[in-house]
Amino acid sequence: MANLFFIPQYIISGENAMKMSTEYMKSFGEKALIVTDDVMVKLGNVKKLTDALDEISVSYVIYSGINSEPTHTMIDEGVEIYKKEGCDFLIGIGGGSPLDSMKAIGAVVTNGGSITEYMGKKIEHKLPPTCAIPTTAGTGSEATKVSIITNTNTGVKMLLNDPKLMANLAVVDPTFTVTVPPGVTAATGVDALTHAIEAYTSLKAFSMSDIYALSAVKRIFDNIYEVYTNGSNVEARREMAIAALEAGIAFSNASVTIVHGMSRPIGALFHVPHGLSNAMLLDVCLDYLKPGAVARLNQLAKTIGVYRPGMTPDEGADAFVVATKALLRTLNIKTPEEFGIDKEEFFNQIPKMAEDALISGSPLNTRRTPNKDDIMNLYKKLWDK
Amino acid sequence: MANLFFIPQYIISGENAMKMSTEYMKSFGEKALIVTDDVMVKLGNVKKLTDALDEISVSYVIYSGINSEPTHTMIDEGVEIYKKEGCDFLIGIGGGSPLDSMKAIGAVVTNGGSITEYMGKKIEHKLPPTCAIPTTAGTGSEATKVSIITNTNTGVKMLLNDPKLMANLAVVDPTFTVTVPPGVTAATGVDALTHAIEAYTSLKAFSMSDIYALSAVKRIFDNIYEVYTNGSNVEARREMAIAALEAGIAFSNASVTIVHGMSRPIGALFHVPHGLSNAMLLDVCLDYLKPGAVARLNQLAKTIGVYRPGMTPDEGADAFVVATKALLRTLNIKTPEEFGIDKEEFFNQIPKMAEDALISGSPLNTRRTPNKDDIMNLYKKLWDK
Repeated sequence: MANLFFIPQYIISGENAMKMSTEYMKSFGEKALIVTDDVMVKLGNVKKLTDALDEISVSYVIYSGINSEPTHTMIDEGVEIYKKEGCDFLIGIGGGSPLDSMKAIGAVVTNGGSITEYMGKKIEHKLPPTCAIPTTAGTGSEATKVSIITNTNTGVKMLLNDPKLMANLAVVDPTFTVTVPPGVTAATGVDALTHAIEAYTSLKAFSMSDIYALSAVKRIFDNIYEVYTNGSNVEARREMAIAALEAGIAFSNASVTIVHGMSRPIGALFHVPHGLSNAMLLDVCLDYLKPGAVARLNQLAKTIGVYRPGMTPDEGADAFVVATKALLRTLNIKTPEEFGIDKEEFFNQIPKMAEDALISGSPLNTRRTPNKDDIMNLYKKLWDK
Repeated sequence: MANLFFIPQYIISGENAMKMSTEYMKSFGEKALIVTDDVMVKLGNVKKLTDALDEISVSYVIYSGINSEPTHTMIDEGVEIYKKEGCDFLIGIGGGSPLDSMKAIGAVVTNGGSITEYMGKKIEHKLPPTCAIPTTAGTGSEATKVSIITNTNTGVKMLLNDPKLMANLAVVDPTFTVTVPPGVTAATGVDALTHAIEAYTSLKAFSMSDIYALSAVKRIFDNIYEVYTNGSNVEARREMAIAALEAGIAFSNASVTIVHGMSRPIGALFHVPHGLSNAMLLDVCLDYLKPGAVARLNQLAKTIGVYRPGMTPDEGADAFVVATKALLRTLNIKTPEEFGIDKEEFFNQIPKMAEDALISGSPLNTRRTPNKDDIMNLYKKLWDK
């Protein structure tokens, strides 16, 4: 069987990545739409970017309206500004939301219509040049062909998935992540861990996605506790930024599985940030998928160094699951209850969430095929664990 | 410090990769120049390609004149055919020579002049779309931004090195490699091993190149003896094809070092195929660079499984060098003498070869900086070992 593998055309990583990237931005066009949020403006991250653009005489207009998980109305607004201002390329800077929004705006700019019509649709025309600058180490959106936009009319988190959504340039500068607070650092780091584990245990995994998935899992286990407790350690931040990028590459090529399938409905209905809803679900989903993925989980145990000589594959797989659960406890990932979700409302929504999870298709990539009952049970376990 | 990382826009790998790749070729243009050699035509590999192009109604013209290491006159001829026939994209199929030639033809098509003027020159205009289909597991040319063309007027192997030379599509189908005879299998496999070791020990190595380098070294140690002695093992051939691709990605991003610097002059003056001249040089160069690269060679020992608990880094590094030398003996890599080079002529050329090696710049990426005397001594050792 053959497999397609692809990543952003150019990836610039490391301290000073922004400075090195300007010659590429200059080749992209004359006026950029910068897609971001107000926090990025306040933190001065947008100013670092605009200073760099001023230096190379590239014009820009800032759209900082992505102040929560992105919705279809935010995309409409971005498209309008892009057109009105005569922009010819896009730069997204921030967490996953601005980067996903940038891709969605780009798609509508060249393909027309409303983003609400794009779910499951092939994108015909290529986007204007796109540059993604992540400021958290988590979503990996800088290296994926997906974008998640909530249709607020229907309450559905729409998954857009098309090779044309891959950014032309990813700029991964770990210095941006140093200011991220511990709670967000943990949730986004576990988001990246989830991407890597799902990509490695996906039925669509192949050798070229595997090396990124394994590398990401190892880097995250080696560094996530350090960045959670000592956020100013730039070396560890760099490892996490690279890990998030690698995990994004891995799942963009090998797909995600049950965790993401179940995570999107929680996000859409209860406004839980995407990274956190993934982090919440990881342990119950690992228990579920283990019987179908023993060999792969055993390899992950070897990769993070918890496999011991003499272990059976089953014992190795268990060792990885145990290590992951211990890590999640250490990072104090919030439960749905701690996040403030009402128990009765959550249980009432379980049948709809299970249906939406299955419709997304992601759960079918799991090495143990779940039906609606399985998924409903997992949502219950998530609450009761 | 920031680093740029890039690979072909699309990589399709695995059995049936050719079939999966046709939709991409169709989007590249209407008439392809197929750059190849007569052996590829005789083996039926070109027919597999043209059958696939016929199926999608893409026209083509075949230029099969790359029947040795590529020279500037072959490039001239290819450019002439491309223009005369009204081609609008390029497909290279074969070993490194047709792929390198395809890139050089593409560069001249859009940038004009003669390829003899391109050494060390930045390429201004992007090439027509390019598709690289390797049929040996070695050069990694399908995933590199370099091309090596001999200027027969001066006897110099010109290194062209520019991001614009990276193919848009790499099609890595291991079934093409099954017919490669043992001697070529060994030499090309060691060529890939050399790329990976040089990339990993290069001063320009960084985390994103390292994961490919390490993965390639492991795959090659695990599979090269099998493909050498049992060429029809498709599983092992697949691992070697992926390894060659990974090694190409690694060195295209992290550069090569002393082996390649010393290898090109041997190739240019004594017509030794590139893979073989690298293979000849690997062991003496490893001995030379070891003092500067102990930690990295120790990691390579761990990667291939010859590191034993309790070893010092120096002992680990030695274990890797010893294992590599043993592997080279097993594969019966020819010496310069066995290849038929005259000893007196070789020794007479040593000063010129050492100069040309240094001029190429590659030796300066080594973790132990060589001067002309060092390189002359290594050429002597290569003969006397």
